[in-house]
Amino acid sequence: MTHTLEEIARIVDGQMFGPGDLIITDAVPAGDSGTSAITFAESDAYLKFVENSDVAAVLVGKEVESSKPHIRCDDPRKAFVRILATLIRELPLASGIHATAIVSQDAVVHSSARIGPYCVIERGVVIEEDVRVYPFCYIGEDCRLGKSCRLFPHVTLYQEVRLGDRTTVHAGSVLGADGFGYYFDAGMHKKIPQVGGVVVGDDCEIGALTAIDRAMAGDTKIGEGTKLDNLVQIAHNVSVGKHTVMAAQVGIGGSSRIGAYNVFAGQSGAADHVATPDASQFGAGTGVTRDILEPGGYMGRPVTRPVAEERRIMAAMTKLPALIRRVRELEEEVAKLKREQQK
Amino acid sequence: MTHTLEEIARIVDGQMFGPGDLIITDAVPAGDSGTSAITFAESDAYLKFVENSDVAAVLVGKEVESSKPHIRCDDPRKAFVRILATLIRELPLASGIHATAIVSQDAVVHSSARIGPYCVIERGVVIEEDVRVYPFCYIGEDCRLGKSCRLFPHVTLYQEVRLGDRTTVHAGSVLGADGFGYYFDAGMHKKIPQVGGVVVGDDCEIGALTAIDRAMAGDTKIGEGTKLDNLVQIAHNVSVGKHTVMAAQVGIGGSSRIGAYNVFAGQSGAADHVATPDASQFGAGTGVTRDILEPGGYMGRPVTRPVAEERRIMAAMTKLPALIRRVRELEEEVAKLKREQQK
Amino acid sequence: MTHTLEEIARIVDGQMFGPGDLIITDAVPAGDSGTSAITFAESDAYLKFVENSDVAAVLVGKEVESSKPHIRCDDPRKAFVRILATLIRELPLASGIHATAIVSQDAVVHSSARIGPYCVIERGVVIEEDVRVYPFCYIGEDCRLGKSCRLFPHVTLYQEVRLGDRTTVHAGSVLGADGFGYYFDAGMHKKIPQVGGVVVGDDCEIGALTAIDRAMAGDTKIGEGTKLDNLVQIAHNVSVGKHTVMAAQVGIGGSSRIGAYNVFAGQSGAADHVATPDASQFGAGTGVTRDILEPGGYMGRPVTRPVAEERRIMAAMTKLPALIRRVRELEEEVAKLKREQQK
Repeated sequence: MTHTLEEIARIVDGQMFGPGDLIITDAVPAGDSGTSAITFAESDAYLKFVENSDVAAVLVGKEVESSKPHIRCDDPRKAFVRILATLIRELPLASGIHATAIVSQDAVVHSSARIGPYCVIERGVVIEEDVRVYPFCYIGEDCRLGKSCRLFPHVTLYQEVRLGDRTTVHAGSVLGADGFGYYFDAGMHKKIPQVGGVVVGDDCEIGALTAIDRAMAGDTKIGEGTKLDNLVQIAHNVSVGKHTVMAAQVGIGGSSRIGAYNVFAGQSGAADHVATPDASQFGAGTGVTRDILEPGGYMGRPVTRPVAEERRIMAAMTKLPALIRRVRELEEEVAKLKREQQK
Repeated sequence: MTHTLEEIARIVDGQMFGPGDLIITDAVPAGDSGTSAITFAESDAYLKFVENSDVAAVLVGKEVESSKPHIRCDDPRKAFVRILATLIRELPLASGIHATAIVSQDAVVHSSARIGPYCVIERGVVIEEDVRVYPFCYIGEDCRLGKSCRLFPHVTLYQEVRLGDRTTVHAGSVLGADGFGYYFDAGMHKKIPQVGGVVVGDDCEIGALTAIDRAMAGDTKIGEGTKLDNLVQIAHNVSVGKHTVMAAQVGIGGSSRIGAYNVFAGQSGAADHVATPDASQFGAGTGVTRDILEPGGYMGRPVTRPVAEERRIMAAMTKLPALIRRVRELEEEVAKLKREQQK
Repeated sequence: MTHTLEEIARIVDGQMFGPGDLIITDAVPAGDSGTSAITFAESDAYLKFVENSDVAAVLVGKEVESSKPHIRCDDPRKAFVRILATLIRELPLASGIHATAIVSQDAVVHSSARIGPYCVIERGVVIEEDVRVYPFCYIGEDCRLGKSCRLFPHVTLYQEVRLGDRTTVHAGSVLGADGFGYYFDAGMHKKIPQVGGVVVGDDCEIGALTAIDRAMAGDTKIGEGTKLDNLVQIAHNVSVGKHTVMAAQVGIGGSSRIGAYNVFAGQSGAADHVATPDASQFGAGTGVTRDILEPGGYMGRPVTRPVAEERRIMAAMTKLPALIRRVRELEEEVAKLKREQQK
């Protein structure tokens, strides 16, 4: 990246205050440093932070002043996103099907799709226009990749995994492996055959090294616009609503129904067969062990409580050792009062 | 799947009540819907659920009545499993060794084994009859795969990983990577060489993206019939007993000895160097931080307690903020009583 | 491994007590068994353990006596490490670039580096001397691998991932995938472009199936000498200090700054935008949800407390159900005292 401040003002459609020929070579998050970098400040607190740093320039809101060279714009975060967007380089991938890719004659690959080296694509697969499949992907029988999907290296789709349009799966993720289903018989865990599929909606993004199991029968479902981070586990027959977000290392147990617009923070999870309503948030490490009936924020494991209640209990716990001492003292005082009274 | 109800009655060896020519095209879990689907009900509660759904037919126990077309059988769940079993399609794999597989001349591959495209098999490897190795597997020196093993795509076995008969490893799992062993010396963590192997028994199933580290020396051991879900971590020198079940994202620390017939629920774990007895269960998120001496159910982190005790404590926590208030009130009352008495 | 006791005494530079021609074929961790194995004992407690086992010989400290054949040495653990070091066999890899590796003409690969079968190396990559890249690795544009790095099978490096000298990445790990960054706009999560890189220092070891995301802009940083275990998540823009250790399944949230010489035990983690000082330790399952200001040991989730305080609270919790009963009794006694007094 090499832009003058003036060029950046044009990119973000903002009003420039400072030298138009200032050379900007980097874009850094609010709070980071970089003597030829531009950053953004959405609040006075961040602006103070930025002014004490060594960055070259800052994006600010309308009417905001700064001692640094700055560009005023309607929404500094969105403006920053526009700068980042100019820096994106897709991983390279030649057009067409690479000579080393093994594609079944019974697969249908759109002529505009790109299939990288060392991919294996089985029969019945349908790959729509503008799809990119990076090296070492395995796409099992009867999978479907909607328009403009991206599979990064080493993705495995077993069978009957269907992705909507513009959905991305990051490196190493596994969709459609067998659900964890057994029944106990004669001292052994016997396998319940897993014969279902996986359906992922449009505009989803699945992080790296994430596992979404196929349903026992029917489909495991991820709603449109939903984003899963890295190392997430989605068990068989789960359904996740639209526009839900799950941070890294979240795990959802079998057959649970997660609502739309949910947020699961890192390392949280849900047990088997539980449901959450739309518009609910679960704090880091929280374990949802029962149906949640009211939308809102929840925390705690193994008991999931509304955030305010959990915070009150957590604060009370701090006082517990002292409380035990106070109760012992009270017991002594009461005993003494009793002895006095009986005299 | 397309079966008439009569055909299904024959598959499950049950007694049909309803139209024999009813077309069934799907099998769904108890509670799911599907107008041409069959499901099963093991209890009155589930049957009620099913009768209020739109499924076409239901498997029930002997003597059970239903307003839906139904099939009576000895064990509805096992009957349902038999239907699912008719729907299994193994991932395709041509017989023999694919032309692109790189197999050492010093490896022994049974003539009935199937090795997929783009596999690498090093010297000293022994692969028994009816084994299936899917694309992109790496099988390191001196590994052994027992009869009818299955390695799904992208499995990595480092060195001296020995799998029993009929054991399955799902996509992306890594067996035999170095254990996490260092010693601190002169301000740095120095590596303790990891030279051991991994032994997995017969009839095991290892989920996707699961890691089982090689022992420092000797072997990390997984007992026969044990099932690990996705994203599980088994550290070096761990031994897991027979027929144990670990759900997704469980982690077992180095050198721990886990008993037979244990159940670890999702996101639970055990510290280094701890032991559990046979027939023990650990709730979701539980952390076993000490040797468990009595079989039974346990919960809690960082303190692992019998389930009943943990439940009592969890319930008591809910009352803690109120308790603090009550103790304050008591203190005031006692002070007042004291003042009165001293008059 | 086949050594006589005398040969081992020479390897560890120790003083032998026992038959010099005793054949040793295995090295086992303290406490394990093996009739032709050698082990080590650093303490009296371990020595007792060893003497009751069936091992053939033991490494002990200076002046220590044993009824087993033994070798006295300055540091039994280091001596044991020297024996293990004689047993290491690197995974095999032919010299040069394998015929099936696809290496861009615009990549620079040192003549002493080894590139295994079915690797893909994109343009702008620099690979230094003595590097080993095992099969199925993807090395994206402008990555750099310092001297003597090792990438085990199935590693994915996206773009601009730079590894220091002597750094190892285990099988299946993914470095440089997009950070989990979105902004909410018009009912959807829109992607914040992720255009940064990853920098890993010298002498690091990254476990299997671990994910380190690229920065939004700038770099995600792992300090020299730092070791990450399997299934670890490092989010975008995190910086981890030097010589820090993170056990399996740890997760660090975006933009957090982890100090040097930290220890994160298994399944612990840190939220977004928090900082830890150098020389701090976090217990298994702990969640760091705020900046930690003082070095030391911490436990607890969702509240992170100094270890001693958390232990006190955990012990107090055990007494909570009884405490509730005691407070109820006190209330009754106080009411009675009050009634008496009012007479």
